[in-house]
Amino acid sequence: MTRVYLDHNATAILRPEARAAMIAAMDVCGNPSSVHAEGRAAKALVEKARAQVVAAFGADGADIVFTSGSTEGASLALAGRGLHGAAVEHDAVRAWTVEDLDVSAQGTVRVTDPAACTVQLANSETGIAQHLPEGLAVTDATQAFGKLPVAFNWLGVQMALISAHKLGGPKGTGAVVMKRGTDLPARIKGGGQEMGRRSGTENVIGIAGFGAAAEAAEKDLANGVWDRVAELRNILEKALVSGASHTIFVGKDQKRLPNTLCFATPGWKGETQVMQMDLAGFAISAGSACSSGKVRASAVLTAMGYDEATAQSAIRVSLGPETTEEDVLRFADAWLQKEKKHRARAA
Amino acid sequence: MTRVYLDHNATAILRPEARAAMIAAMDVCGNPSSVHAEGRAAKALVEKARAQVVAAFGADGADIVFTSGSTEGASLALAGRGLHGAAVEHDAVRAWTVEDLDVSAQGTVRVTDPAACTVQLANSETGIAQHLPEGLAVTDATQAFGKLPVAFNWLGVQMALISAHKLGGPKGTGAVVMKRGTDLPARIKGGGQEMGRRSGTENVIGIAGFGAAAEAAEKDLANGVWDRVAELRNILEKALVSGASHTIFVGKDQKRLPNTLCFATPGWKGETQVMQMDLAGFAISAGSACSSGKVRASAVLTAMGYDEATAQSAIRVSLGPETTEEDVLRFADAWLQKEKKHRARAA
Repeated sequence: MTRVYLDHNATAILRPEARAAMIAAMDVCGNPSSVHAEGRAAKALVEKARAQVVAAFGADGADIVFTSGSTEGASLALAGRGLHGAAVEHDAVRAWTVEDLDVSAQGTVRVTDPAACTVQLANSETGIAQHLPEGLAVTDATQAFGKLPVAFNWLGVQMALISAHKLGGPKGTGAVVMKRGTDLPARIKGGGQEMGRRSGTENVIGIAGFGAAAEAAEKDLANGVWDRVAELRNILEKALVSGASHTIFVGKDQKRLPNTLCFATPGWKGETQVMQMDLAGFAISAGSACSSGKVRASAVLTAMGYDEATAQSAIRVSLGPETTEEDVLRFADAWLQKEKKHRARAA
Repeated sequence: MTRVYLDHNATAILRPEARAAMIAAMDVCGNPSSVHAEGRAAKALVEKARAQVVAAFGADGADIVFTSGSTEGASLALAGRGLHGAAVEHDAVRAWTVEDLDVSAQGTVRVTDPAACTVQLANSETGIAQHLPEGLAVTDATQAFGKLPVAFNWLGVQMALISAHKLGGPKGTGAVVMKRGTDLPARIKGGGQEMGRRSGTENVIGIAGFGAAAEAAEKDLANGVWDRVAELRNILEKALVSGASHTIFVGKDQKRLPNTLCFATPGWKGETQVMQMDLAGFAISAGSACSSGKVRASAVLTAMGYDEATAQSAIRVSLGPETTEEDVLRFADAWLQKEKKHRARAA
């Protein structure tokens, strides 16, 4: 039986354009810091990718600092600054914030002083999108970039975190995007790469893949691919709503990522559902993908006011550009069968 | 005319084994932190690579913390510790040390209190290898690993920095190797990957390439490939010594990397030589590969007591497993011709 991958928010499937760009980059042997022809060819790959990311993220005139991903990006943008944040942020952001921003029952973050705050653009677990206040210090755009039409230059933020592997690039590369001239002390020092903001020989192959993936993701957005994904998500949601009367659909009817569906069935642990669906051939997740083996209530849902039992029972289904209607209908059938069995056992 | 790449210490040519492992890893779509089958398959790739690195680096029982390379590794191992170091270290190490260790005219570092010091295993510019004192806090093994027979468990150090792209893996991945149980505060925090020491979704494709390259490099060492490289380096050195009487050969007759030749021709700037040789079809370097465009005297050579003019005229030729005798003889011919012209102009 073919597996169905419905965990794109954990990591997306590598796009063919990214794969091709990475394989091509394997033949370029130089170090981008070397001045000879081989070095210049490697540098050109990095700069091509930078231009692709700038174009896809609407960041003309901004600085792109390549990192090893949004977790490193969060440390670069946030460490030592004491910015205020909310409990719905990713753990990589929460590690550096003063966590005192309120979260509404709808999952929206209340910001008082934008210049001293960080707010995500969209949540990885619920898909709920935030309205960012003008002048925000930092936004984690990791989940939104590539799935929602977003332009850095329209966001009104000082800095944004983005990651390749959430939009079909490779894992292990990302960027901090910042208004030109932003003063940002380096955390990884040495050779002075990335204008001194992030030293270290560049991940040339990965960065080439990032650029190609960003360009392809932007094309998908322009071509309505994510509208189709949203339709499939809505078909799935409708099928589940009509079949599972005890299930809570988080973020329903709210502005959210087109591919994300988060739902909780109190009394049926999320981790159990993930394992049962895995055995049935479907990859989904409970909460965000963190270091393996952790079973815990979703901090995102508890921050929204859900009780512990509900938060522990939440799962996330996240679709991708290659997801088909058959995929989501098969998932709905399989999950509803398990849900029925669960209720029969619990009764 | 075929180009000859003689800048392996800046970055090595990607090994076919690494390329194959990376392309295979592109088909594994999961996030290593996900518990489903796709996630477990990605995790298995990371753990396979970890075992390959452990075996190649003789680090059985030690902990391998994957990073984005030795520059990040240096920040993880050294930041905030105030360890003592010498001016021959790489800039990524120098960024974090108290630089008060003496360097001899032969390039060796004098260590008084090993537990409070960091010393490189081999220098990237001169190739000169250090004898590490027992109980050393940190060694930068980036240039030595894969070129010299080295076993972490025989080095007597607490931690070592290694990087994939110096031994034929991809740029953008490396590791800090440490004795099991070493207490090391994380600098990149979030999901808790790498046993909490380095968060962030793993660079699965890059790490798979690192593991395969490390394994292949180890085989090359066992098969005497680097002995052959050393012979070619010696042939090159002999040819240059006999033809260029005003040139100083740094590290000659010392224990050094088998592939590295560093020589200075006072009055003829290293950067000029690099450009001239680039136009003639050869990739070499002046000093270590740093952020592009910098033209400056080698801090390594000045630390060894060479004057500024000599240090500014140093170049480095670094061979790889695929270098041929024809390559080095062609280089010697071309360089000696340029040297003759330079002397004619200078006279």
